[in-house]
Amino acid sequence: MPGIPESIFDSRDQRKAVEEGLGFAPKFGADRLIPVVVTDHQSGHLLMQAFMNKEALLKTIELGEAVFFSRSRNELWHKGATSGHTQKVIEMRTDCDQDCIWLRVEQSGAACHVGYTSCFYRSYPVGEAWTEDAKLVMEEDEKVFDPNEVYG
Amino acid sequence: MPGIPESIFDSRDQRKAVEEGLGFAPKFGADRLIPVVVTDHQSGHLLMQAFMNKEALLKTIELGEAVFFSRSRNELWHKGATSGHTQKVIEMRTDCDQDCIWLRVEQSGAACHVGYTSCFYRSYPVGEAWTEDAKLVMEEDEKVFDPNEVYG
Repeated sequence: MPGIPESIFDSRDQRKAVEEGLGFAPKFGADRLIPVVVTDHQSGHLLMQAFMNKEALLKTIELGEAVFFSRSRNELWHKGATSGHTQKVIEMRTDCDQDCIWLRVEQSGAACHVGYTSCFYRSYPVGEAWTEDAKLVMEEDEKVFDPNEVYG
Repeated sequence: MPGIPESIFDSRDQRKAVEEGLGFAPKFGADRLIPVVVTDHQSGHLLMQAFMNKEALLKTIELGEAVFFSRSRNELWHKGATSGHTQKVIEMRTDCDQDCIWLRVEQSGAACHVGYTSCFYRSYPVGEAWTEDAKLVMEEDEKVFDPNEVYG
């Protein structure tokens, strides 16, 4: 969509309107991206975090499926196009400043390319000053799929 | 902490180690920030999304309370320092690429400066092509606090 006008969404001029109004005025950063949080609509579990550009956001709205912008591949990324692990958007929300998007989705397969349901399968201890001895802790038992089979 | 060495965390040289190992190797962007997702540890509800720089991450680890980096104020932001609405970190996780932090917190008061429990109090309809007629929909009934009283 090279022809998307800059002003397609609502104005961000009035802070009060952005925070408490009903006009959709998403804020894209200097990199033209907005962060996106994706949770499972039933369990509420955090599945992944990614980014959208304006085109990805408009595609997501139109399709009702999650479309992101891949920073590593520098292209639109229809989640699940390769793996089949699409995300049906049950609800989309934005936050007070409208500088973040939240997708509550129905996840096919698994969200993470490593094979786990969620990308967030490791924790890190808090409550004491950082030390190089501290390690991540695995919080998931089993992968849902074998990445070698899915991605070849 | 002006003396924090660049290499304080684990190496990100080996993708396999970053994704499946137990070394903590968070990735900070070109802006030296990493996105952070904050959910309520009991309800699982998404409360807010913010960013940390290296110092904020180390402070969060040490204190066991959420410390972010405020992009608008360009300074460390100990959440709740003004409002009293601190976030006790019950669990911290990172994702496959280690380019995002997830905090599961016990929230005092409310997460959002507008007065709602969560910053994500408005939804936006999906499933049809974008139109300027579509509006955000309020999903929360009442504010938890009056911002004028808390922030003066």
